[in-house]
Amino acid sequence: MIKARIVVTLKNGVLDPQGKAIEGALGTLGFEGVAGVRQGKVFDVVVDGDDREKAKDQLSAMCEKLLANTVIENYAVEIA
Amino acid sequence: MIKARIVVTLKNGVLDPQGKAIEGALGTLGFEGVAGVRQGKVFDVVVDGDDREKAKDQLSAMCEKLLANTVIENYAVEIA
Repeated sequence: MIKARIVVTLKNGVLDPQGKAIEGALGTLGFEGVAGVRQGKVFDVVVDGDDREKAKDQLSAMCEKLLANTVIENYAVEIA
Repeated sequence: MIKARIVVTLKNGVLDPQGKAIEGALGTLGFEGVAGVRQGKVFDVVVDGDDREKAKDQLSAMCEKLLANTVIENYAVEIA
């Protein structure tokens, strides 16, 4: 078994309305000095086998096909 | 300025229907050997100032109040 964490974040320059909303809410809750918030997704994936290179390729393919919208998002695959 | 990454994930034992749906979709797309998928959130936050300890406390408070539902979610604050 191989455990991996995939982090998907918006590319720089892509507007993040959700992040902006959170930034505003934090201000309303009294948190000062919040200069920016950007939200992304994290996927903790477990795959069978123990070939780390093969797993990394497979996980990248999962990102390309499903987990990330590569037009506006970046993804990073971290094998535990 | 201090940059930090907050990762919010479901606690063990909490059902993750979204993760299950993704697991199923990956199987449908032909990815074999996917033993589990759990989805979480990531927040990249920038706060003013340069006191790392104070920033860590402030970011934890943000999690407690807004970014995480601490009944079912864990959060981790990583200062860059």
